[in-house]
Amino acid sequence: MKNTAVLLLSCPDQKGLVAAIANFLLTYNANILHADQHQDAELKLFLMRVEWDLHNFTLPLEDFAAAFAPIASRHQMTWRLAESAKKPRMAIFVSRFDHCLADLLYRYQSGELHCEIPIILSNHEDTRWLADTYRVPFQYIAVSKDAKDEAEKMQMAILHREQVDFIVLARYMQVLSPRFLHHYENRIINIHHSFLPAFHGAKPYHRAFERGVKLIGATSHYVTEVLDDGPIIEQDVSRISHRDALDDLIHKGADLEKIVLSRAVKWHIDNRVLVYANKTVVFD
Amino acid sequence: MKNTAVLLLSCPDQKGLVAAIANFLLTYNANILHADQHQDAELKLFLMRVEWDLHNFTLPLEDFAAAFAPIASRHQMTWRLAESAKKPRMAIFVSRFDHCLADLLYRYQSGELHCEIPIILSNHEDTRWLADTYRVPFQYIAVSKDAKDEAEKMQMAILHREQVDFIVLARYMQVLSPRFLHHYENRIINIHHSFLPAFHGAKPYHRAFERGVKLIGATSHYVTEVLDDGPIIEQDVSRISHRDALDDLIHKGADLEKIVLSRAVKWHIDNRVLVYANKTVVFD
Amino acid sequence: MKNTAVLLLSCPDQKGLVAAIANFLLTYNANILHADQHQDAELKLFLMRVEWDLHNFTLPLEDFAAAFAPIASRHQMTWRLAESAKKPRMAIFVSRFDHCLADLLYRYQSGELHCEIPIILSNHEDTRWLADTYRVPFQYIAVSKDAKDEAEKMQMAILHREQVDFIVLARYMQVLSPRFLHHYENRIINIHHSFLPAFHGAKPYHRAFERGVKLIGATSHYVTEVLDDGPIIEQDVSRISHRDALDDLIHKGADLEKIVLSRAVKWHIDNRVLVYANKTVVFD
Amino acid sequence: MKNTAVLLLSCPDQKGLVAAIANFLLTYNANILHADQHQDAELKLFLMRVEWDLHNFTLPLEDFAAAFAPIASRHQMTWRLAESAKKPRMAIFVSRFDHCLADLLYRYQSGELHCEIPIILSNHEDTRWLADTYRVPFQYIAVSKDAKDEAEKMQMAILHREQVDFIVLARYMQVLSPRFLHHYENRIINIHHSFLPAFHGAKPYHRAFERGVKLIGATSHYVTEVLDDGPIIEQDVSRISHRDALDDLIHKGADLEKIVLSRAVKWHIDNRVLVYANKTVVFD
Repeated sequence: MKNTAVLLLSCPDQKGLVAAIANFLLTYNANILHADQHQDAELKLFLMRVEWDLHNFTLPLEDFAAAFAPIASRHQMTWRLAESAKKPRMAIFVSRFDHCLADLLYRYQSGELHCEIPIILSNHEDTRWLADTYRVPFQYIAVSKDAKDEAEKMQMAILHREQVDFIVLARYMQVLSPRFLHHYENRIINIHHSFLPAFHGAKPYHRAFERGVKLIGATSHYVTEVLDDGPIIEQDVSRISHRDALDDLIHKGADLEKIVLSRAVKWHIDNRVLVYANKTVVFD
Repeated sequence: MKNTAVLLLSCPDQKGLVAAIANFLLTYNANILHADQHQDAELKLFLMRVEWDLHNFTLPLEDFAAAFAPIASRHQMTWRLAESAKKPRMAIFVSRFDHCLADLLYRYQSGELHCEIPIILSNHEDTRWLADTYRVPFQYIAVSKDAKDEAEKMQMAILHREQVDFIVLARYMQVLSPRFLHHYENRIINIHHSFLPAFHGAKPYHRAFERGVKLIGATSHYVTEVLDDGPIIEQDVSRISHRDALDDLIHKGADLEKIVLSRAVKWHIDNRVLVYANKTVVFD
Repeated sequence: MKNTAVLLLSCPDQKGLVAAIANFLLTYNANILHADQHQDAELKLFLMRVEWDLHNFTLPLEDFAAAFAPIASRHQMTWRLAESAKKPRMAIFVSRFDHCLADLLYRYQSGELHCEIPIILSNHEDTRWLADTYRVPFQYIAVSKDAKDEAEKMQMAILHREQVDFIVLARYMQVLSPRFLHHYENRIINIHHSFLPAFHGAKPYHRAFERGVKLIGATSHYVTEVLDDGPIIEQDVSRISHRDALDDLIHKGADLEKIVLSRAVKWHIDNRVLVYANKTVVFD
Repeated sequence: MKNTAVLLLSCPDQKGLVAAIANFLLTYNANILHADQHQDAELKLFLMRVEWDLHNFTLPLEDFAAAFAPIASRHQMTWRLAESAKKPRMAIFVSRFDHCLADLLYRYQSGELHCEIPIILSNHEDTRWLADTYRVPFQYIAVSKDAKDEAEKMQMAILHREQVDFIVLARYMQVLSPRFLHHYENRIINIHHSFLPAFHGAKPYHRAFERGVKLIGATSHYVTEVLDDGPIIEQDVSRISHRDALDDLIHKGADLEKIVLSRAVKWHIDNRVLVYANKTVVFD
């Protein structure tokens, strides 16, 4: 079992940042395993992910914030610390299509996704059997047109009770309120079944079929208030031809959705994703 | 050298079409090399491409239309006959970016593109050296804002004089008039530097960069009056990351554009593309 | 539900084959839905797949062989008829790795794989839970070094009892005897975790890692007596980099294996695969 | 025009390396633009690429070695410094196939490849026209079976006279001697027309066709004494089907070869490639 810490940070670009962070960590005897950085030349922004072994690291993590504060403040850093040993708590929202849910649960069970799943929330009963199979709690909450607010309150109460860190919308077909989105900013991952920004909105496969595209796509992104416009985490495509009927698009697309979503979730869990300017940096 | 004929046809779907065509060809001792068909279930349309060896084919091609007329009429066929031995005449329009032009000329010279290139037309002098290298006639025609009509008349006169069969817009940055488009319907191939319908219109790489997509694309399509909305012939994509600046997108995209455009041109030349319902069937 | 018949055939290439088959089918009022053919120019071989609607088809399928015999005999055809309504019976062999099994079972349950699964056979107990989840019979048969023969006899008895049509080796780590292979010729589909012929044999990911390749692959093929040398049905690859440790290769490879194997299985079920000269034609 | 320096280094992994290098550069007021590192966990090796702006860098590059020596020595570093302003001198070896040569020359001329090309060497006259077009010196040197040694001496004399930094074998069909290879260790880039290690050696497309693979590949690698076994820089693949004859494989493969080779050359020029353990790290 890995026992590492990950520091993700961004700040205005300037000289000496790499040295400042490397020296700080060295002071406490850190063995750096990965250090990756990125500069956005236009925005003059510096972004970094550094991961180090906690073995022999002499600074207790509960004291990290205090010790790092002077550096962070001097360089106007926004930063976040994560421990690999602490599994984040992921909630899954799902409606009727179950392929993404089945895929996530299998990866969770096989140890590929290093997280806890305290709860699956759904506005349908259809996928309860999958939750049962993998012994994950499942909660049905009806979302009716007239009582959306109420449903969301129930959802939020459960998320709060379960101390959920982030949410995956595994083909969840309901729109979430701005209040909800704001509360989980950059912590709600959606899978959209098109190569965004193409075919944003409803029925992308139908529209892809009608338009006669030669590739179909899937996009995983953080959800923002503007529909299908949040920071893109991952995308991929699959070749189709005139021989593929609409149903074939939907089947081939399902495989894409599973892979694209699972990659995004894995990277989020591994603290590889940094959001800025409505884009993501995915440190590999 | 291949000596074959290709028949491309579409008609309302019904029983007996394959037999009717196969029997017709067999009457004249045709040796069918490829026979490929497609049904559009929704539109109840039958589309077919059949290619046969002309060696020992007993029907002179100049008599084909008359002989085939009864079958075509009975089944309400739209059809077109092409001879592999007759190289189609391709004009290339280009502005300043020369990568697609250079690529097409190299493929033409190496024998990969089985066509003639009687003329390259440009609104800039920049690419004349390439035309000279490959010994292809080059004509500069200024396209000013106030004299677009006049420029187009000159272009059309040249195309007519050179008996051009189809036109490739190899990053040609001017919009063509409806009259021009109508005259060369389904015979003008454009390369658009995005994965359409994403980023149709101007500056797709800039917008792809700004949107933070993880793949860039290129699309080759027949030009229609609606901008970037014509039948798509081919598309492909290339992976990018946050490390790629706008310039990298443009460079990586250039490689995509060359390949996607050259495939579309090759398929068009080989009579593999059938257009219907603003889509293409590409018989492989 | 589709109610169609599929005819797969191969024979020496000659004139009139398309017409002969189309006319035969038309005699019995067949509505051809797909007709796809291929010529191997070197071997002078004609291969064809034709699918037609059984609605209004006037020849009972039990009489097909007798009616088709004269044509088949005249043209020295090898042929096979399949009915889409009759689900083939697929056995799955598995050892410890369960990702391919889990994937196949999910696709089976979701209706994507149009088959029956009467039995899962394994030399380990590890995957029984998956069989139970999807309510598919599971049989553990120990395969010890000294009693391989005996184990195989038990396997064959079960396959016979369950009237199994074809077998999928979903990461089954035992070698099958020539007798076994011969009995299920072109009916045993294996997934090999490399881009064959690279890294045939044992531990392909280890060797790919050591060799420093930039892409990893997976190959689905029919099993023959020569290890990893049977007719390839499908292959695909995934990009890796120096950042990927051996474990990452194994994880990324698992996704490839699932997709490549499931495509091959689906095409086999849909009667799209024709084997000749140790290759496959996959009619799409 | 970029004015940067790149430091590429490898050494036994240990604590404090990032800090040591960052501090060293900061001492001289370096503005780090990119810093990328990699650890090989098995070999306990640390590899790094760091690029900084030379504007305001207070250490003259001619004094770099002396100033850096203490750090390098303390950590047993192997290192290399490159200046982006100094274009490396690339020789191209070619035989008859000219697609890779044409591609490299176009990219050179368009400014995509930041290098000089003082000489093209060939054992055939066929590609002289391309050299003339792009105004690059071309030297024909016959390579006969009996006088290989002599030919190589002439080649080496020219390479020496032209102060060539590295060599690209753009489909050069002659084997180079160990002495030659040793002299340009990790400085000779070859393109092999298969997905290595599959189909190493002669006629890979023929063998791929015969084996019935579903993807063809191309591999760019540094040349070592063991045929087609050197460190792989880049690989890619392209989908084929049973419809593709051998000639189609060769055509589709040519496009792959061009792209894979040009990427490898570009990365080599940009000092992104580090070789160790017969593998490459390509810092992106």
